[in-house]
Amino acid sequence: MNDVLLDKHRHRLDAAVAAIASRGYYSAFDESPSPRVYGADAAAEGKAAFEALLDRPFALDTPGAEGTVATERSPYGFDLGVAYPRVTDPDALLSAAAAGRRAWRDAGANARAGVCIEILDRLHGRIFELANAVQHTSGQAFVMAFQAGGAHALDRALEAVAYAWTEMTRTPTTAVWEKPGPKPDSPPLRMEKTFTAVPRGIAMVVGCNTFPTWNGWPGLFASLVTGNPVVVKPHPGAVLPLAITVQVCQEVLADAGFDPHLATLAAEDPADKLAATLAVRPEVRLIDYTGGNAFGEWLEDNAKQAVVFTEKAGVNTVVIDSTDDFAGMCRNLAFSFSLYAGQMCTAPQNVYLPADGVETDQGRKSPAEVAAGIGAALEKLLGDDARAVELLGGVVNPGVVERLDAAPGKGEVLVASRAVVHPAYPDATVRTPTLVGITADDSEVYETECFGPVSFVISTSGTDQSVDLFRDTVTRKGAMTAAVYSTSDDVVDRVRDAALDAGVSLSENLLGGVFVNQTAAYSDFHGTGANPAANASYTDAAFVAPRFRMIQSRRHI
Amino acid sequence: MNDVLLDKHRHRLDAAVAAIASRGYYSAFDESPSPRVYGADAAAEGKAAFEALLDRPFALDTPGAEGTVATERSPYGFDLGVAYPRVTDPDALLSAAAAGRRAWRDAGANARAGVCIEILDRLHGRIFELANAVQHTSGQAFVMAFQAGGAHALDRALEAVAYAWTEMTRTPTTAVWEKPGPKPDSPPLRMEKTFTAVPRGIAMVVGCNTFPTWNGWPGLFASLVTGNPVVVKPHPGAVLPLAITVQVCQEVLADAGFDPHLATLAAEDPADKLAATLAVRPEVRLIDYTGGNAFGEWLEDNAKQAVVFTEKAGVNTVVIDSTDDFAGMCRNLAFSFSLYAGQMCTAPQNVYLPADGVETDQGRKSPAEVAAGIGAALEKLLGDDARAVELLGGVVNPGVVERLDAAPGKGEVLVASRAVVHPAYPDATVRTPTLVGITADDSEVYETECFGPVSFVISTSGTDQSVDLFRDTVTRKGAMTAAVYSTSDDVVDRVRDAALDAGVSLSENLLGGVFVNQTAAYSDFHGTGANPAANASYTDAAFVAPRFRMIQSRRHI
Repeated sequence: MNDVLLDKHRHRLDAAVAAIASRGYYSAFDESPSPRVYGADAAAEGKAAFEALLDRPFALDTPGAEGTVATERSPYGFDLGVAYPRVTDPDALLSAAAAGRRAWRDAGANARAGVCIEILDRLHGRIFELANAVQHTSGQAFVMAFQAGGAHALDRALEAVAYAWTEMTRTPTTAVWEKPGPKPDSPPLRMEKTFTAVPRGIAMVVGCNTFPTWNGWPGLFASLVTGNPVVVKPHPGAVLPLAITVQVCQEVLADAGFDPHLATLAAEDPADKLAATLAVRPEVRLIDYTGGNAFGEWLEDNAKQAVVFTEKAGVNTVVIDSTDDFAGMCRNLAFSFSLYAGQMCTAPQNVYLPADGVETDQGRKSPAEVAAGIGAALEKLLGDDARAVELLGGVVNPGVVERLDAAPGKGEVLVASRAVVHPAYPDATVRTPTLVGITADDSEVYETECFGPVSFVISTSGTDQSVDLFRDTVTRKGAMTAAVYSTSDDVVDRVRDAALDAGVSLSENLLGGVFVNQTAAYSDFHGTGANPAANASYTDAAFVAPRFRMIQSRRHI
Repeated sequence: MNDVLLDKHRHRLDAAVAAIASRGYYSAFDESPSPRVYGADAAAEGKAAFEALLDRPFALDTPGAEGTVATERSPYGFDLGVAYPRVTDPDALLSAAAAGRRAWRDAGANARAGVCIEILDRLHGRIFELANAVQHTSGQAFVMAFQAGGAHALDRALEAVAYAWTEMTRTPTTAVWEKPGPKPDSPPLRMEKTFTAVPRGIAMVVGCNTFPTWNGWPGLFASLVTGNPVVVKPHPGAVLPLAITVQVCQEVLADAGFDPHLATLAAEDPADKLAATLAVRPEVRLIDYTGGNAFGEWLEDNAKQAVVFTEKAGVNTVVIDSTDDFAGMCRNLAFSFSLYAGQMCTAPQNVYLPADGVETDQGRKSPAEVAAGIGAALEKLLGDDARAVELLGGVVNPGVVERLDAAPGKGEVLVASRAVVHPAYPDATVRTPTLVGITADDSEVYETECFGPVSFVISTSGTDQSVDLFRDTVTRKGAMTAAVYSTSDDVVDRVRDAALDAGVSLSENLLGGVFVNQTAAYSDFHGTGANPAANASYTDAAFVAPRFRMIQSRRHI
């Protein structure tokens, strides 16, 4: 059974491993929700499957649970009403999680990889249902939920499996060691050695509200494939996508003869503080967290028994020095500001440019003129409400609107936000981005993440200061992304150097269909672990290698 | 220059990478101090070079130092009198360490690997001098100091370089990413991407007294080759081997055009508490530590800004169930107890066996009879003082003698320790191992490391209890090594399983020229990171991958 699963999915694993090595393009899961790709009925069936889950208990067996919680409300204006088992007995939960670990360990890397890719394959079979679940928890528009929350998340998960499988299998399971004798005629020393990848313990994944699958799956699958039972603690506002995930994990594990409780969902009432309770349990040896800085730093400081991988927040930066395609630059940035209304951890926030303007193919442009150019591109992109909502999605929580409402007080409004009416969901809160003009002196504004569709156009004394502020702010406050626009090779070189110093990845002169807030699995790293915004990267060896240990035994032969 | 160095040493790097993958035998540095290998004059020249260093200032430029410290006394009975620059200004030290890091980072993985292997090559050229330095700081006998402190330490260092180089170069420095357009006739998206391995920050290596090079070099070279400046904080009792190391690092770095202060020696008076000061500096982002549990745990808890790799202490265990070669087992264990007089982190301490005896080819043997068998083998091995000292070496510090003197109070002395007179160094303290009989009830004795030539023969109710105690004690107290003797495949299987549960590597039925306290670079992992004795392993991906981050930039083409 177990080898059969890896054989079945071997082509995907091999292709993922090859793409990771080349950093070329690869995707194992089609990102187009088109009926030509997924069939004429797939979209309707997925929506029906999602709707069938609403307003009832979710079918999931959770040890240590008593009663249920229903905590989700769609940003599109309705309660999901899905009731999940509420974990009240962490002892029982962790003990059930641990029960199957020996068999899972002893199955070996190949069997575990086969099971994990089978899980991805079955999740792919429910991709439209998942897309609806992501849409109505995160507020992402449907296509984005399908792509980022479905196909791209599956690719990131496969990437994590591929990295971990490579790491586990680079050491052979058995080896013969033969040391020549000290003299030519003395017999050699011969030993047979056995190597076993042993999991670290129980893993916890703490999910986020905005990208429950995309941010949750890499850690989940990296831990599971390396042999660790995984407890998934979802954000109370985005349980359903991870509940479906755990349901599929349990199905596949059971089908393959393993204990289904190797994956469990730890749903809670927000007041339960379950993540903090589980995080310091001695059994929990791995934690993957995506979310705000306060709890992320608390985990890093307090969960000393665990290896903690965090993605927190930073201030993503654009340095504009010059461009030979002003319209293209404005279009590209307008799209980045608009996508999911700036509610991505990768969305640009701080735009540094010289107060006396930047050289462009349309002449010298002052900061206000650059903002106006972006504003015109935003108007074109978002002028029609029906089209706008498919890019902006809904506002994920009231804090976003509060920050948006407070933004005019922070500087000069160069581009105003407007409310958009969703044609299908009139109760949804939808907002377009605002651009606020400030100066290099306003560090108290631009050194803090302002999560949501608020960006700052920051006038500097020149590109030298822009680069210095970029380096300094990101070094101290962190960033998930950075971008530069310049026609000068020297300036690009200097910004590249500043990006290396600050430990953030850089996008240069993006004009076409690639945006600073998007990364491609197998090719782009997401986050670096080299600045305060995140202590880890999706996916690299540092993200997978600490999740298991190699234990050997040796004997004479 | 830089490529030239990697070209020069490429054969060693390639062979190390291949051996790591196969886990077969490899050594890049001959372990035999024979004149046939190293030349007729090498030994005498190395000794003379060592003696020329004594009783004078050591030639090393150390920023932030004022005055000198001379803290070393040979366990063979004389003061070394080597005066090292005493670091009094950590700001100046760290600032000098950081000065050259950009050029070192920008040189790239290949250039750094070339420089690091050139350092190893030049250290190899001083191997007899190093062996004398290790002997007269650790107390190891000369041949052991030459092998463990010289050749094998060089192999472990090369292994760390090879792992880190593999990890850095598995991502290409540039790649082209081409995503097909959404329709067959739409143009592809094409991006060029650049990937740079960026060091984490400044690294600190905290050396130990017993194996300053073997335990210090893996972390030192793993950090240096990944681009991190390294501050080496030696144990005040074993400075010279690491001072020579840093001297060679600085020479090679300068010759290759890099800042020599990328490697510095932070010598101190023990009262200076320099390691604790440096450990919490924000610039220090990596710490490698070998030593006692108390400071190791302090580092893990307090150096939150750094990734901390520790090797501390545990209780190494032997389970004896049965053997078909009683004499061979006794000889093998006697050698393991004798080697460096149990002052290895890998030396066995706890021997579990049934109170009613074990089946052997010489009939059933009670615990006392097994101890007597080992005692007879010890007598054969150590009966002649002149031969004994070449195996036992000298006692590294007075604490060892104190524990040895206290051992009879812990149980029944089955084999007594005796004092050995060193023919060449009459002031040296040399002791043979003692075996003390206790029972499974004496957990307060056998659950604590008793560092030095003291081992416990622990009578259990049977092999079942032996295995349970092994699993439980190692899980809670840690171990660097474990061994089993049994003629039963079932028992060996159960002990293997217990070793996986406890997270310790296992040696099975060792009889010949391989000993439980020895590991071979490229093939055996040293420590596992899976039990409390160490949070890391020499060497695996988890030991090298967190020392750098991959930073990318991307652009349209």
